[in-house]
Amino acid sequence: MEGGRRPGGRSARVRDAVRQATIAELVECGYPGLTVERVAERSGVHKTTVYRRWGNVEGLISDALELARQEPWPIPDTGTIEGDLRGVVQLVRTGFADPELGPVSSAFVAAAMQNPAAARALHEFFVSRHEQSAEVVRRAVKRGELPEVVDVQEVIRVAIAPVYYRLFVAHEPVTEKDAARAADAALAAARAGVL
Amino acid sequence: MEGGRRPGGRSARVRDAVRQATIAELVECGYPGLTVERVAERSGVHKTTVYRRWGNVEGLISDALELARQEPWPIPDTGTIEGDLRGVVQLVRTGFADPELGPVSSAFVAAAMQNPAAARALHEFFVSRHEQSAEVVRRAVKRGELPEVVDVQEVIRVAIAPVYYRLFVAHEPVTEKDAARAADAALAAARAGVL
Repeated sequence: MEGGRRPGGRSARVRDAVRQATIAELVECGYPGLTVERVAERSGVHKTTVYRRWGNVEGLISDALELARQEPWPIPDTGTIEGDLRGVVQLVRTGFADPELGPVSSAFVAAAMQNPAAARALHEFFVSRHEQSAEVVRRAVKRGELPEVVDVQEVIRVAIAPVYYRLFVAHEPVTEKDAARAADAALAAARAGVL
Repeated sequence: MEGGRRPGGRSARVRDAVRQATIAELVECGYPGLTVERVAERSGVHKTTVYRRWGNVEGLISDALELARQEPWPIPDTGTIEGDLRGVVQLVRTGFADPELGPVSSAFVAAAMQNPAAARALHEFFVSRHEQSAEVVRRAVKRGELPEVVDVQEVIRVAIAPVYYRLFVAHEPVTEKDAARAADAALAAARAGVL
């Protein structure tokens, strides 16, 4: 079934179709409604192929997150740590506010709360995201804006955490000003030597 | 059914039984498994009574959170803002680490991600929790430890957000040191005039 003259291209297309279907189903029905059968039907990929390659819904979610993890993130480079850190936090805020992207990201956060395998996959996604974003802090250290002992990933965590907290815990709106203040707070803590 | 000589006491007992059953069902089966029928059966309260007083699963969750909201929180009073803020964040951390309490709180966070009414109820819970906890910041302002212009509730949000972020978004462990650092970061930001 998966042979032919361009197995790699075919395989990548199948993977992308299944991934898109997984995301669409997650957004529409949530984790409890996600089934291999529905993903197969929606993607147009045969059910036995989906079972063989992805195994179950956990495999589908993990693979969709694995692909998301590989996508490069547009890390800001404004020349100052104030601008860069605000940029990172605004990216998180606008990502969730985006009508296309927001529901997808939210569906992953929700799925991870309901399934340990999805939680592990989302954890790996954030390990990668923290590592990428920390580049703005490493640059600041090189420029002498922050002390060398700073925990670069902790600065990212503390900067973005209030946005996630408002969205997924306290269920409050997040304004541009809220996001900027969260970035500034992390920066003040880093400058004070706390992070 | 709900008459008798002590209708108030009876009513409170019924409410508590239904609340305990709602929480137990949420912890065991999650939001998707929560039904009025199962809560009625578990609580020993007649199904028609549960339907009449709580309406549906959203009503059950909202009422359970309303009761949680009314419970006073043991706000620390160590004499310094460092100690108090660390105490607040440690309360959050140890609450989720508690084998009895942790799964209940986690189940509410998960339910709120899957249902708008539960999200509104959880929001109200956090409005109340922020307001209670902000007392430690108000005391610090009175003692002259923090500037009068400080946003007392934002200090709380920024202090506790990294704990929730690790637990429910990045799915990372939260150590006592992590919690203390989150409190110290919020305090450094408040002292710097950012919050």
